[in-house]
Amino acid sequence: MSDKQLRIGLIGTGFMGRAHSNAYRKAPNFFELGMEPVLQAVCARSDGAAAAFAKKWGFASSETDWKALIARDDIDAVDICTPNDSHKEIALAAAAAGKVIMCEKPLARTAAEGQEMVDAVEKAGVANTVWYNYRRVPAVTLAKQLIDDGRLGRIYHYRAQFLQDWTIATDVPQGGAGTWRLDAAAAGSGVTGDLLAHCIDTAMWLNGKIGTVSAMTETFVKERMHSDSGKVEPVGIDDACAFLCRFDNGSMGIFESTRYARGHKALYTFEINGEHASIRWDLHDLHRLEYFDHRDESITRGWRSIHVTDGDMPYMDKWWVPGLQIGYEHSFVHQFADFVTGLAKGETVGPTFQDAQVTQQVCESVLASGKDGSWHDVAE
Amino acid sequence: MSDKQLRIGLIGTGFMGRAHSNAYRKAPNFFELGMEPVLQAVCARSDGAAAAFAKKWGFASSETDWKALIARDDIDAVDICTPNDSHKEIALAAAAAGKVIMCEKPLARTAAEGQEMVDAVEKAGVANTVWYNYRRVPAVTLAKQLIDDGRLGRIYHYRAQFLQDWTIATDVPQGGAGTWRLDAAAAGSGVTGDLLAHCIDTAMWLNGKIGTVSAMTETFVKERMHSDSGKVEPVGIDDACAFLCRFDNGSMGIFESTRYARGHKALYTFEINGEHASIRWDLHDLHRLEYFDHRDESITRGWRSIHVTDGDMPYMDKWWVPGLQIGYEHSFVHQFADFVTGLAKGETVGPTFQDAQVTQQVCESVLASGKDGSWHDVAE
Amino acid sequence: MSDKQLRIGLIGTGFMGRAHSNAYRKAPNFFELGMEPVLQAVCARSDGAAAAFAKKWGFASSETDWKALIARDDIDAVDICTPNDSHKEIALAAAAAGKVIMCEKPLARTAAEGQEMVDAVEKAGVANTVWYNYRRVPAVTLAKQLIDDGRLGRIYHYRAQFLQDWTIATDVPQGGAGTWRLDAAAAGSGVTGDLLAHCIDTAMWLNGKIGTVSAMTETFVKERMHSDSGKVEPVGIDDACAFLCRFDNGSMGIFESTRYARGHKALYTFEINGEHASIRWDLHDLHRLEYFDHRDESITRGWRSIHVTDGDMPYMDKWWVPGLQIGYEHSFVHQFADFVTGLAKGETVGPTFQDAQVTQQVCESVLASGKDGSWHDVAE
Amino acid sequence: MSDKQLRIGLIGTGFMGRAHSNAYRKAPNFFELGMEPVLQAVCARSDGAAAAFAKKWGFASSETDWKALIARDDIDAVDICTPNDSHKEIALAAAAAGKVIMCEKPLARTAAEGQEMVDAVEKAGVANTVWYNYRRVPAVTLAKQLIDDGRLGRIYHYRAQFLQDWTIATDVPQGGAGTWRLDAAAAGSGVTGDLLAHCIDTAMWLNGKIGTVSAMTETFVKERMHSDSGKVEPVGIDDACAFLCRFDNGSMGIFESTRYARGHKALYTFEINGEHASIRWDLHDLHRLEYFDHRDESITRGWRSIHVTDGDMPYMDKWWVPGLQIGYEHSFVHQFADFVTGLAKGETVGPTFQDAQVTQQVCESVLASGKDGSWHDVAE
Repeated sequence: MSDKQLRIGLIGTGFMGRAHSNAYRKAPNFFELGMEPVLQAVCARSDGAAAAFAKKWGFASSETDWKALIARDDIDAVDICTPNDSHKEIALAAAAAGKVIMCEKPLARTAAEGQEMVDAVEKAGVANTVWYNYRRVPAVTLAKQLIDDGRLGRIYHYRAQFLQDWTIATDVPQGGAGTWRLDAAAAGSGVTGDLLAHCIDTAMWLNGKIGTVSAMTETFVKERMHSDSGKVEPVGIDDACAFLCRFDNGSMGIFESTRYARGHKALYTFEINGEHASIRWDLHDLHRLEYFDHRDESITRGWRSIHVTDGDMPYMDKWWVPGLQIGYEHSFVHQFADFVTGLAKGETVGPTFQDAQVTQQVCESVLASGKDGSWHDVAE
Repeated sequence: MSDKQLRIGLIGTGFMGRAHSNAYRKAPNFFELGMEPVLQAVCARSDGAAAAFAKKWGFASSETDWKALIARDDIDAVDICTPNDSHKEIALAAAAAGKVIMCEKPLARTAAEGQEMVDAVEKAGVANTVWYNYRRVPAVTLAKQLIDDGRLGRIYHYRAQFLQDWTIATDVPQGGAGTWRLDAAAAGSGVTGDLLAHCIDTAMWLNGKIGTVSAMTETFVKERMHSDSGKVEPVGIDDACAFLCRFDNGSMGIFESTRYARGHKALYTFEINGEHASIRWDLHDLHRLEYFDHRDESITRGWRSIHVTDGDMPYMDKWWVPGLQIGYEHSFVHQFADFVTGLAKGETVGPTFQDAQVTQQVCESVLASGKDGSWHDVAE
Repeated sequence: MSDKQLRIGLIGTGFMGRAHSNAYRKAPNFFELGMEPVLQAVCARSDGAAAAFAKKWGFASSETDWKALIARDDIDAVDICTPNDSHKEIALAAAAAGKVIMCEKPLARTAAEGQEMVDAVEKAGVANTVWYNYRRVPAVTLAKQLIDDGRLGRIYHYRAQFLQDWTIATDVPQGGAGTWRLDAAAAGSGVTGDLLAHCIDTAMWLNGKIGTVSAMTETFVKERMHSDSGKVEPVGIDDACAFLCRFDNGSMGIFESTRYARGHKALYTFEINGEHASIRWDLHDLHRLEYFDHRDESITRGWRSIHVTDGDMPYMDKWWVPGLQIGYEHSFVHQFADFVTGLAKGETVGPTFQDAQVTQQVCESVLASGKDGSWHDVAE
Repeated sequence: MSDKQLRIGLIGTGFMGRAHSNAYRKAPNFFELGMEPVLQAVCARSDGAAAAFAKKWGFASSETDWKALIARDDIDAVDICTPNDSHKEIALAAAAAGKVIMCEKPLARTAAEGQEMVDAVEKAGVANTVWYNYRRVPAVTLAKQLIDDGRLGRIYHYRAQFLQDWTIATDVPQGGAGTWRLDAAAAGSGVTGDLLAHCIDTAMWLNGKIGTVSAMTETFVKERMHSDSGKVEPVGIDDACAFLCRFDNGSMGIFESTRYARGHKALYTFEINGEHASIRWDLHDLHRLEYFDHRDESITRGWRSIHVTDGDMPYMDKWWVPGLQIGYEHSFVHQFADFVTGLAKGETVGPTFQDAQVTQQVCESVLASGKDGSWHDVAE
């Protein structure tokens, strides 16, 4: 790794491959990074797809074998944007090769896989991060700032939802591009690893560790055509999952995710109730933060809708002018900008693999509780 | 008028007759009035209708001739709930008979009629009020309180709308019960007297006098069946009216009303922008007041949605508990409670005929400007 | 009971005593009841309070001993508005005396008490109802109508919250007027019986029986001054309760209630996700129903905010005109109007004691699960 | 101009210089353009600023004299991002040099200037566009589609606002970077040319020509420090402007803009009421379109909040997945993608200079009416 450049090798050219590439291209236009990101190589399974993606996004070269990409000396950092079932193998190889690793969430299919990955990056001493991008939505970062300032006081309640509706139709297949998230072998789990993992990451970042959980899971559609086999096969993932929990700080948590909530495309919401103040946020209007402060004078007290677009709000001095929204993609720009800035300074910037592994352990406990119906302590 | 009772004679049994009767019945259950309202007599054109209404609402007696009602010694107060074309005649008779007068808005069809009415009550020295009920929606009263406290600072802008959509269909007749508001002879004007009069009353109560206006009016449906004649006749009212104005305090005003705004049933909204703070309100969610205070710390500044249901907010200590809404009808209860309480104490409580006459003059200027396209000063 | 009159004896003159009295007075003004409600007697512990309440609300007489009230021949119906610990005793006596019984919710402190009450009214053959008033908020009734019409299709998810924030201050006492809800002896339970009982009643009315539950409960403030003893005593109620459940129709449920959710005064919300459509509602804006229909054309599909004020919506033809809200109190008017109309026709109108007892059993299972952490089947 | 490349020379490196550069860089990653945009040169007054901007945004070269830039053979297109007072001179030179011209809005300070510019591009036969970017916010484009499909039926009302609050402080200077918009010499007018021009452009695009206007203008702060002279000088711009108008299709219009509306950063809203349906939109939540269709069944009729993020909505198939927002900057990407795609095909894509000149004429009439208080016909 040069002092001045971070030469990136991207593995996977799906939705996340595009989101990350966009971040790499935009970050230097808007942020002072201390290091120049270079789109060095992209890897896809087919030669044509890799080359086309490289051309469209300005990668200097392309590969069809991720091992070849990792083997290249002119790659400083590996970005893992493949389905979950290959995260571990790629990460272990990249760590062994001494590469910086940026891995798409969830870290792995299971806590066991995740632990191997954590061990590998720690052993190799390579910088690492997992793309839990929602921490860097400015409204969410502002929530963190308000909580850390102590404005909420003692926290009583944390609740989060991640509601979608795209798998209600029974003819959505499992397996294959776009739908591998319904295939337990590829994804590890359903909404728990895909969606609740986001909620859990944000929750522990904002409100500390989750100690114990009790869950209910459901698979509404029991069989789906598998894209690989072409046959109808049992569905192994959780279509929906809700869980109760207790945080180490004494607050009560309630989480829910489903892909069967008609009317919600990607409704990630959270709300935190503290002694003095409360906060809520909603991904469908991600540029707003709702804030209620009980210390306001009683006759003018109410939920405030903060339009998070002013220059003194997190990240917003880098963009446009007050009143003008940024969107989903900018959370990736922010995460990359923070990560690479840290890298240039030799500082660790979360979420690291270790941070993501704690989320993995909560997910594991949730899935276990969903099976046996009892409360589970989250492994340390 | 006894010291202890206010014996009411109601003329008109339509929508407003019901709204006022409800107020008379409820006020003593929730307020300390200092005087007992008695539902003494109700007057409708037909004997059956009058008797049925009296039975349903608990009036002690009924009449079919309003002159007979006014002539009765056992009536202290006359409530005028008839179409606009009879307001003046009834009010003049009631004043001559020394009755307290409560008149439905608008005061009259024209400023000239209104002036006669003002002169009559002043000459007779009788207590009088006009039912501009929206002043007594708690959120609106709270707005008044915040403005009078000086929280907004210098006012720059006032805007108000009253949007409906019930006359888009061309087969809505003019004239007759429910639709006399489309008949220029009965109503005097269209949306100006019916809807903008409300907006103007609130505006001058909150923001002071309107000095000069420039308006645009339109009659979209030029002919409608007349219920009286059974024939298609030209429509004489304004279907829509918008006007610009300047208030005496230097602020700019913009008002609009129509019955052709698809999707709005009774959307009365206003917004006031001051140097330090702004306020907005919406009749469709009348229990909320939106408030923005620029003096809030910048990172948590936003429009506050105040749920106006707490005991320290106007009128709300009389009702239920925080979080539980009251509705439209309660504005009439409040107006009556305030009026009769004032009566018991010998105090004048607005809006009086004189207050309503100022609104009448603004309407007159608006309609004149709508005709000739020039700016009109509002008569003093 | 005369054919024409229902002579009511009200026991308890607190918040609910007022809400019910208001309903008795208003119902005949707005509804055709088939029977005239007569405010015959009111009972409070002190003579002065009873007489003052009778005067304010128009009751013909007052009592200080509820047994005396029940013993009167001129009382047809007894309304129980006392704290929960006297519901059973009063109901048993009223049933034995052959009175119609209208009991405030929850039915009782425990399922065992509730069962005795059900048995008593069934044995006596007296008409009975429990004031789960939220069923009669027009938007909620409309939700019921849409579900019963089959518009949602198969139901996947039901979620409800009832969030308040009034007991966060540690100096709120337990016991006594207004705060007996914090005293386990008087109330039976905390938020479960007080708030979740509403959510459960609505849920089972809309979505059928709840079969099994898993709960988490918490008492955040462990000791409070007791108004009776004047001493600091352990708090026996649940301050917060969340539970997961499965309905008999296969849908997943998630419920939460607390009095520690800063910013929420009485935020009762529910949302139902079906195969084709979803519905949500919020007590803080009770006159609106949110509806999403996936069968709408894709480019104009969105959550619809239905302003439930039109004449073809439940109950709304009785009130004002489109666009004009009614409020919280009207739900009681509707429940009473429905109940007394049924009485006049000899028809049973829910929720009956038996209906309320099913809710009682769910609450019992929830509290048991909150204690032992395991899933509990709801008793049949 | 090569068949394959559009070599762009950008003049001006302020807010708009950044917004356009971002669009040039992003468009090819997300759209098939038919022509490759090349960031060939950027021009700023100072050498350092130009070079720094070029480095940050990837321009191949920099200039400090816009005439030099226009003179270069390796520039195909000139992008004018300077204050309004230089638009005409630069555009005339660029047209004479045969360059494609992309000019920031408003076209010019006055209609007279604008006409010279239109004449110049028509005479030169060069492709041209003006950055009225809000047409390309997907929700606004969707509104256009719904209107053109005839879903609204006859249009009765159009209303628009553009409210800001950034010049309330009297110490905001006039003149200079960021504040030249307060200097009449540089800007031509105040909110009329800066903000209402956007509203007018959108309005005529959606609803056809505006025929006649009546306006009210105000300058609340009469004197401000001038950044050039360092002296307090009279303010020549309009701080606020409201106008009434009639469209050629018979609908009534009402427009308002101000920089003194506390609480609004950039609240551009519009609403259109048609016979069958209505539409409204708000820049503060630009990813939503509100739609009301009266043809919906009455009991489920309501304003629909359309989350404009699905693949079948304008432009959205190019971005992420349903539920994930894009922001302000994307409107420029869309405008540029449409423009350059048209260029590649030899098709004219609006808004052209001629389109923008019609807006200029409306502004001219509005300002004239604001001065003399009479209705003005808009020049053809």
